[in-house]
Amino acid sequence: MHVDTIVALATPAGAGAVAIIRLSGPQAIAQAEAVFVSIKGKKLSAQKSHTLHLGTLIDHGKVIDQVLVALYRNPHSYTGEDVVEINCHGSTFIQQQIIQLFLRNGCRMAQPGEFTLRAFLHGKLDLSQAEAVADLIASDNEAAHQIALQQMRGGFSSEIQHLRQELLNFASLIELELDFAEEDVEFADRTQFNQLVARIILVLKRLIDSFAVGNVLKNGIPVAIVGEPNVGKSTLLNALLNEERAIVSAIAGTTRDTIEDELVIDGIGFRFIDTAGIRQTQDYVEQMGIQKTFEKITQAQVVLYLLDSVAFQQDPTNYRQALEKIKNQYPQKQLVVVFNKIDLLDEATTESLLRVLESMQVQVIGLSAKQQEGVVRLKQILFSLVQTGALRNNETIVTNTRHYDALLKALEALQKVQWGMDTGVSSDLVAIDIREALYFLGEITGEVTNDELLGNIFANFCIGK
Amino acid sequence: MHVDTIVALATPAGAGAVAIIRLSGPQAIAQAEAVFVSIKGKKLSAQKSHTLHLGTLIDHGKVIDQVLVALYRNPHSYTGEDVVEINCHGSTFIQQQIIQLFLRNGCRMAQPGEFTLRAFLHGKLDLSQAEAVADLIASDNEAAHQIALQQMRGGFSSEIQHLRQELLNFASLIELELDFAEEDVEFADRTQFNQLVARIILVLKRLIDSFAVGNVLKNGIPVAIVGEPNVGKSTLLNALLNEERAIVSAIAGTTRDTIEDELVIDGIGFRFIDTAGIRQTQDYVEQMGIQKTFEKITQAQVVLYLLDSVAFQQDPTNYRQALEKIKNQYPQKQLVVVFNKIDLLDEATTESLLRVLESMQVQVIGLSAKQQEGVVRLKQILFSLVQTGALRNNETIVTNTRHYDALLKALEALQKVQWGMDTGVSSDLVAIDIREALYFLGEITGEVTNDELLGNIFANFCIGK
Repeated sequence: MHVDTIVALATPAGAGAVAIIRLSGPQAIAQAEAVFVSIKGKKLSAQKSHTLHLGTLIDHGKVIDQVLVALYRNPHSYTGEDVVEINCHGSTFIQQQIIQLFLRNGCRMAQPGEFTLRAFLHGKLDLSQAEAVADLIASDNEAAHQIALQQMRGGFSSEIQHLRQELLNFASLIELELDFAEEDVEFADRTQFNQLVARIILVLKRLIDSFAVGNVLKNGIPVAIVGEPNVGKSTLLNALLNEERAIVSAIAGTTRDTIEDELVIDGIGFRFIDTAGIRQTQDYVEQMGIQKTFEKITQAQVVLYLLDSVAFQQDPTNYRQALEKIKNQYPQKQLVVVFNKIDLLDEATTESLLRVLESMQVQVIGLSAKQQEGVVRLKQILFSLVQTGALRNNETIVTNTRHYDALLKALEALQKVQWGMDTGVSSDLVAIDIREALYFLGEITGEVTNDELLGNIFANFCIGK
Repeated sequence: MHVDTIVALATPAGAGAVAIIRLSGPQAIAQAEAVFVSIKGKKLSAQKSHTLHLGTLIDHGKVIDQVLVALYRNPHSYTGEDVVEINCHGSTFIQQQIIQLFLRNGCRMAQPGEFTLRAFLHGKLDLSQAEAVADLIASDNEAAHQIALQQMRGGFSSEIQHLRQELLNFASLIELELDFAEEDVEFADRTQFNQLVARIILVLKRLIDSFAVGNVLKNGIPVAIVGEPNVGKSTLLNALLNEERAIVSAIAGTTRDTIEDELVIDGIGFRFIDTAGIRQTQDYVEQMGIQKTFEKITQAQVVLYLLDSVAFQQDPTNYRQALEKIKNQYPQKQLVVVFNKIDLLDEATTESLLRVLESMQVQVIGLSAKQQEGVVRLKQILFSLVQTGALRNNETIVTNTRHYDALLKALEALQKVQWGMDTGVSSDLVAIDIREALYFLGEITGEVTNDELLGNIFANFCIGK
């Protein structure tokens, strides 16, 4: 099917102690053998699968590097083809030299995700498992990691595959009936078929419902931080982030920029969305800013409303109105009022003001971001707002928009089938809807596929995977 | 000697398709076995060296990742200890999870260079070879790469080691004579000894001389670009760099920022040093800038003096004076006059102006950076200025300042020995100088060592190597 042998850097870009150059294809072992001299004088092509060999890579008499070569024979490799992985010294210069050597010798540079694409084409994993590989590499918190891992190890795709097979069996019988239409026979037991369709619809509904949870767990819970300038938003974010960063940075090589405004609490990612202040104003430009804030709140699942406790004490009415407005406008959002700077008030005043806020039927927490007081408590509150039951119970969760779309379309088709059966629509029309359901279920696992679909999926991969 | 087992990320930091977590020490295999479940149900501890095993890493029942485990048994590993390398999916989250798991289970985070330090302590490589590993990873051009590779594969350290051993044999005989001082015996043949010392001195001198070349080849040839603003410095640099970059960027993951002002021509690195313009001026601040320029020229090996050909045509005297000044001030620098913007003059004018410049006894090249005219020729000139004979002839080249210092000190001690022998100094005084020479020669290969020396060397390594 694939006659060419592909090559790519499999480890992250940049310099490090070790880098891996990966080859896959029918010529992988021959390509490596042509430039590799084992210190023990062994021929690579005579070695067993899953073995490692020390030696040097030589290009026309010039030594490129001392390397370790890992050998995997088809079908016992990631791609299902012959695979050679060259562990070299990790300078970018050496990485380039080696890749260019193989390109000169007739290998082709791998496309993003092409190793995984070949794994899929050779039946090493189905399409949703392949997609999970990309999710796994991209996952930066416990929840996203666990979901990707579950999906990579089978997840719901085996269930879908199984149900699709049952549906396919009935479909064949019904199609057979159509061939013998004149004889008016009934090969497919309609009662059993009705039960099967009902069962599949139930499963699809459960999976579709899980997407709401899955999507936020995968991408992080969006939290809008609302409050006027100088209310302490940055101080609070830093207070929240710093502690976690200290843990993360104990390990060298943690990417820092990606957690810029993201925080992981007990394995769940939270994405903080900064907003402009909200208050009553006649100023047009300021109103525009407030408009934007409301848009951002719409995207959020949780709204942190920061109040400067001193300012609140001086003019409670103004803030109460703003708060009331948000509460009424977004009844379905999780709203937490953060009563900041309590270190500037005495305890009795703080208590009475907190009670005023609580009387408004909102969740309130008093804290001092500057003094790091109450920050841990806020994290607990954030964590408790998340629906993590499904995750903890190891339930199957759909996180992929493509799967979600396919599930919705399959459900729609099956509901038409159900309606057709109930109202006695002719079998040939029902058969069309069944085929449609089969098509969309097959798209999830890759039993039904096309080049465009594969192209879209694997373009999102990194090179070397 | 080392009872603890160390762990570190061996691949570059950041996310990629694959990452390697490396363990080394007596517990490496047991540590991996405790958390690894092979898909074939194999026990890691029962497996052969240099084999690869697919399975999952599990922490208290929770799957962390699907991984490939590479097993190396002592002494057949990089460090000479038991080594396990875990090839996992390359998300930073997974990398952290795995490292933290092993840290919790009793491994220790590896110091920078600690794997290589252990390799040195177990006699897998000598000290100068260990240093070459760091150089190899840091090398970003062909010359630096070849030098590091040569040094890593033995380089001059085996020669030094051999000569030191011969010297040591004589030293023992001379020390023996001192024990029998009253009997006036002579175990060591003085003629042979003189010959040996002379031979070693010759080798040391050759190595010391090679450092001048080695240093620039390793770090890049410094090239000062001198010229007034708008003479076309940036355009020229871009014209020089762009072409090379195009080659480099064909491979994903090339670090771009490090080659910002660096250019590799035929495998030799050139470092471009930008300078302020030089001209006659009364302005104090401008004079300061010119002062800085002269300092930078001092650091350079090659000076590219850019001239705007149109400006030169209008006022040649001014530019000839400036050029004359640099020529006289730095007679030992390689000076190349770049006569830029020749596309703005007709051919005859260009020719006659070039002849004016050539009459000043300087190397001149006319080009148009903007039109990419003459840029290839300039590269050829730059490359021809470099003394690459030694490199091409595969001669031993010293690049390490520490080795250079030790060679100088050993040479000094041996010259004292030679002088002592010639002038009939008593053997006990000569013996002191021999010991000194032995000490410094031993420091190069690591036969003589101390914690401070090792600390300094390995602190410059990256973690995971």
